[in-house]
Formats: sequence, structure tokens, C-alpha cells
Amino acid sequence: MDLAACEALDRADPLARKRDGFLLPEGLIYLDGNSLGALPLRARDRVRELVDAEWGRDLIRSWNTHGWIDLPTRCGERIAPLVGAAPGQVICCDSISVNLFKLLAAGLALQPGRNRVVAAEGDFPTDHYMAQGLQWLLGDARCRLDTVPREALERSLGGDVALLMLSHVDFRSGRLEDMQALTRLAHRHGVLVVWDLAHSAGVVEVALDDCAADFAVGCGYKYLNGGPGAPSFLYVAARHQAAVRQPLSGWMGHRAPFDFEGAYEGGEGVRRFLAGTPPVLSMGVLEAALEVFGDVRIGQIRAKSLALSDLFLDLMARDPVLADFRLGTPREHTRRGSQLSLHHPEAWPICQAWAERGVIGDFRTPDILRVGFSPLYVGYADVYRAVRLLSDIMASGDWQAPRFQPRARVT
Amino acid sequence: MDLAACEALDRADPLARKRDGFLLPEGLIYLDGNSLGALPLRARDRVRELVDAEWGRDLIRSWNTHGWIDLPTRCGERIAPLVGAAPGQVICCDSISVNLFKLLAAGLALQPGRNRVVAAEGDFPTDHYMAQGLQWLLGDARCRLDTVPREALERSLGGDVALLMLSHVDFRSGRLEDMQALTRLAHRHGVLVVWDLAHSAGVVEVALDDCAADFAVGCGYKYLNGGPGAPSFLYVAARHQAAVRQPLSGWMGHRAPFDFEGAYEGGEGVRRFLAGTPPVLSMGVLEAALEVFGDVRIGQIRAKSLALSDLFLDLMARDPVLADFRLGTPREHTRRGSQLSLHHPEAWPICQAWAERGVIGDFRTPDILRVGFSPLYVGYADVYRAVRLLSDIMASGDWQAPRFQPRARVT
Repeated sequence: MDLAACEALDRADPLARKRDGFLLPEGLIYLDGNSLGALPLRARDRVRELVDAEWGRDLIRSWNTHGWIDLPTRCGERIAPLVGAAPGQVICCDSISVNLFKLLAAGLALQPGRNRVVAAEGDFPTDHYMAQGLQWLLGDARCRLDTVPREALERSLGGDVALLMLSHVDFRSGRLEDMQALTRLAHRHGVLVVWDLAHSAGVVEVALDDCAADFAVGCGYKYLNGGPGAPSFLYVAARHQAAVRQPLSGWMGHRAPFDFEGAYEGGEGVRRFLAGTPPVLSMGVLEAALEVFGDVRIGQIRAKSLALSDLFLDLMARDPVLADFRLGTPREHTRRGSQLSLHHPEAWPICQAWAERGVIGDFRTPDILRVGFSPLYVGYADVYRAVRLLSDIMASGDWQAPRFQPRARVT
Repeated sequence: MDLAACEALDRADPLARKRDGFLLPEGLIYLDGNSLGALPLRARDRVRELVDAEWGRDLIRSWNTHGWIDLPTRCGERIAPLVGAAPGQVICCDSISVNLFKLLAAGLALQPGRNRVVAAEGDFPTDHYMAQGLQWLLGDARCRLDTVPREALERSLGGDVALLMLSHVDFRSGRLEDMQALTRLAHRHGVLVVWDLAHSAGVVEVALDDCAADFAVGCGYKYLNGGPGAPSFLYVAARHQAAVRQPLSGWMGHRAPFDFEGAYEGGEGVRRFLAGTPPVLSMGVLEAALEVFGDVRIGQIRAKSLALSDLFLDLMARDPVLADFRLGTPREHTRRGSQLSLHHPEAWPICQAWAERGVIGDFRTPDILRVGFSPLYVGYADVYRAVRLLSDIMASGDWQAPRFQPRARVT
């Protein structure tokens, strides 16, 4: 497999033309769409309309004339098919953290007599922190987080367990959970499941309805390319909507927000999960970014994602210079999301040296080089070049240069 | 007082030049900055940098290189002097609704043995809805909202009252509360106060520290001109920061967010009130919008605000055609924010007819024409013309045209 062969794969790739819909710096190979998706052309144009014409010219009237008021619903309905949800179950609002709090509180209230929330060790910390916050607020008798090793999940689902909270794809290892099997398992024990789709929505086939999922949250700024800190989304299965209630009962989730009634009365279905006024600029940009998905199926994206990561693994395996990287991601397609996690004691300086050569991956403590594959703007030749550049860095020892040495870092 | 005299006032106005820093449609008189502030030129330019250069070009690295990670703190510190707060007490995040939930829960936890939250009838509904949500979650024994008539506030502050939650300026009437007196009164009864500054921050002199206020929230998109749905801010007095904790304990409020520790440990001071990842585009635009305040004092803004609204009232009083409007806002300067609320049974069609003639006010159910004065971009001649156009509408009966008749409306 050489560069020419990879270029041929790109020419034959039905998703290759999608790359033209993104603005990426010339020559950059961006393998960090799992942290922050690239800028869609459409989002760049949309923000100008939003600011100049809607905010600047039409001002307050835009809530009606430009439909700002329906943004949370419209974004939710655009995301729904990407996560296997029929209409009326997904809405866009707040951050993942805040949405998890709503869902955990809502889920506990549906499970009288059960107080435990089981979660897997190593999942993204904010998920656990939010449960800890709820536990602090409610007391252990009403909410108790149990963080258990992944392999102990099944035996942890006792009769006092109300909720299981799990990442669909692990942010550190890239491991993909079996949503169907785990949801079934939980339901057999009377447990409801809250799925965190941050690292799967938009790149892995997610089948919330088919898996009879209960609740989910997801991220707007990773594979959905909604821009830095784009609002999150949440899913509440239709069958729970009549009974469910959540505590962040702000005016936007009220049955009639502009009647200014004294008593809160939740709106229809998933709308009652809205709290305050949405950040229109950020959400409007996310809505535009979602247009990219209008004419592709997630199945196509998933197939290319796996092909790209397989190519990466093949090229690495053939290069003895890269033998010191240990793969932390399962190799089986059914167990893998859209990133590869490469362990190396010098992952930090290597990541910096790679960036200097034009390849953006990212580092996760303590020793992980994360490599994310966003099939809408990453091609086969990109993967070829990225592996070659990594090989150059390792062969030359360039990563040992003082300028790449560890320092405090935030991403 | 004629148009020439008003134009002379504009020429002598030291704030008049500020108008050049805003993009407003030619000929429009915008008296609804209390709902959505106008677009600052600086914000328009900033969003292009944020999107094109920071997101599009520098991508994930911008969290460090462009300081996205410090946006909540930087915005908070820019807002602090506008609300009379010394550094380290204000942070920007989430919506008012979500921030109220944090503060109510935090405040209740500081008040063991007290469960009541007293609020004034007629305050903005989401404030009450959030307390109702917390009450639903915690149960009446730990949280009970009492909504009382404004004149009954004092006698409601019994020994079981933990918190008093009040709007500084009433959204409907424009009435300004005496923050100093009410905070003192509450403290005498052992009650902590949560102030909602949505309709005062940026236009009324707010002295949180001098009033020994405990907690406050405020709005980014009204007088701070941060754009539609701009993030909110919150204030926690320094003296409460060592003991206080809040339940929406997301990773951004963690002591070390990027260490990915398993257990939540709140960051320094007000930082622990952060929850999830901030909406960078919306918050970055707010940060830029706040630059407008860099070289003015709130005292200047307040003086002009009162002069503008006094002029409006004078001109109305001299025009018999406008005699049917009943003023719902206190006339005394010390009791009035920066809006006038004019009651009229036909307020809705009148508001529509005014808009057609280029004057944007807004309508609040059931019969209120709200007229907001944003001194950074509204001048004396604007006020003169607005009153003349209102007079024309009333004299001609134009507002009775079918196109102005009631319909469902959202703002």
C-alpha cells in the first residue's frame, strides 16, 4: 500500500467530495475531530447571516422571523436520524454535563425505591462528577454513584440500581460498547440506561430506538462539527415522556413560555428538558453544520471510518520504527469507535513533533496519543502521510528536541 | 422641547460617540435593548476571527493559544466592575435559569435548618420555575418556594427562610428595588439574597459588594449586548466561597479539569460554579461586546438613561393624544430601571404599528408597551421622534388596521 494506492482510494471514495464542504488549513492533516470537529463552510457562512442580518438588522424580531425560538427542536430533529431516533425524542440544549444532571435526576425519579447509579471506571470524568453532584444534593439514600470496573458491570446491577450510565465509545481507549446487549442486560434487572454518545454520534451507527434505549446525551462539537463548545443534545425515549420530569425546569421548557404563568408546567415530550434561553449563535452554527449530513448515511461514514483506521493500523504494523506504540483500542470493528489510542511513554513530545509536521492528533494523560478519523474531511492519502510523518519523527528522534518537552497543557 | 433642542442634547452628550460602535439599521429607533441588545461592531468583527482564524485555522489548539479555556473567567472579570464586584467573584457560564439552580441549591446548603425560598410575585417566571424544580427534586422539607406580594416581603422573612430571591429591576414594570435596604433586611433575619440583575446589569449602577450581597445572576444579551442567548453570569460573594458548593459539578469547575480525576473536587472560588464546556462562539462574542464598556462609567450610562426616559415622559405628558397610556413604572429615579412600561388596552397593535414606522419597543402580556432605553446607542432625538411617531399612530388611529391585530407572538 503506497501513496498512489491511497490516492486511488480517495478518488473512488463517494465521501471524498465532502472534504470541499470544510475549511481546513492547506496541508494540515487533522486527526482530532474527536475533540473539535473542523469548520464546515456552511457554518462559516451561516454565522455571518446570524450576526449581520438576524441579530444586527432584524434584532429582537428574529426570534420569530428567523425561527430562533425553534432552534433547539430543529437541531434535535436533525440529529435524531444520526442516532437512530424517531422524531420527538431529541432536543438540543445546554452542555453534556448539565444534560446528564437532568437525565440522572429524571431517571432516578422514575425508579422509586432504587438509589444506585452504576457507571464504568474510566468514562469521561464529567459524567461521574455530575452524578456526584446529584448525590451531594440528594444524599446517599436517594442517589449513590458506584463506579465499577467495566468487567464488573453485569454483577453490579442489583435490585437497588436505578440507572446505568455508560459512554458508548470510551474517550480514552476508543472502545465501543454493545448498546443493544448492555441495554437489554440493564432492563432485565429493571435498570434504565443513560448513554453518553459524545464519541459516537455522527461517526458510529447509533440505534437508540432499536436498542430500546432510555436516555442519551451527546456532543455538538466533535463529530457533528458544530463549533467550539457547541450545545449538547439529549434523547428521552418516547415511552418515558408522559411520566418523566426534570429539575432544571426553566421557562424554555414550559408549556407556554410566553404566557408568563406563575407555576411551572412542562411542555410536550422532550421539550420539557429545555431550561433557559439557548445560545443562538452557537446553536445556529451547529444547525448549519448539521446540513453536511443531509445527503449521507451514517453507514457510509462508519464504513470509511473503519477503512481509514484499518489502513492506519496496517501501515503502522509494517513499519518496524513504530513497533513501540501499543494499541489500546480493540481491533475488532464491533468493539471500536472512530479513534485509535496509541500508548507510548513519550506520547506527549511525539504528539507535539507530529503537530509541527502538520498532523494534529491529541494527547491524553498519561501516555496516550489519540488519533481520530473524521471521514467527512480525512482521506486515505492523509492517513498515509500521517503514518509516514510519524515514522520520520521516530526514526530521526526529532521528538526529543527540547521544544517538544512536557509542559502544562490544556485541550 | 423640540427636535432641534434634542439634537443639541445629542451633540453635547459624551456618550453619543458610542453609537458609532453599534451596527443598527439606518433609520431604526431601537427601544428594546432590554430584550436583546444591539450588535456591537466589535462583536461582529470578533465572530469572524473566532470562526475563521481560531476554529477554522487553529482548531483544537485555540483552547490554549487563543485562551478559550479562560473565557468564563475573563468575561466574568469584565462584568465584575459593571456590577460593583471586586475581582474573583463573577464568572460567565450557562443560562440564568441554570445559574439560579446552582445558586439556590448552594444557598440552601449554607442555611441548615431553613427550607423556605421567598420570592416576589410577578418576577420573571423562570426564576420561580427553577425554585419549583429544586423543590420538586428535594421535597418540601428541604426547599419550599413562597411567592408573596412585593409589599409582604418583609413580614415573610421568618426563621425558616433560607433565601430571598429578587429581581433588581422588574421585567414587567421596570421598578427598581433598593438592593442595599432589602439585603440588610434579609441579613437581619439570617436570610441570604439571590439577586437577578437581568434588567439592571450594564445600565443601572449595581453595587453588589457595597450592599454585602450574597449571590447574583445576570444576563449577557440585554444591556451587555452579548448577542442572542449570550451566556449568563453569576456572582458569589468572596466571604461565601470557602464553604459554598453547588450540585452541577461538571468538569470545567473541577480543580484540575485536565487531570481527569475520578472524584470531583471544586476549583478555587467562583470557578467551582462552572459546569460543562462553554459555548465558545457565543461567549467570545459577549467578551468582545463588553469592550464597549471599557472607557465609560456605569454612572454616565445611568445618568443618560434617566435623562432619556424623563424626556420621553415629558414629551408624552405634553401630548393630549397620548393621555390614554398609563405609566406602570415608578416615576422616582431611585425606583426606576431603564425601561418604561406603558399600559394601554391596545398595546399589542400599537406596538406593531410603531414598529412599522421604525420604532421597536415590545409588548408584554396583557397590556404593556415596554420602552427600553439603552444609552449607548439611543439618543435624545431618537426619543423625540419615537414619541412623535407614537402620537401620529394614536391621532390617526392607524393602529386599528387589520394587519396589526393580535396573533400568537413570541419574543
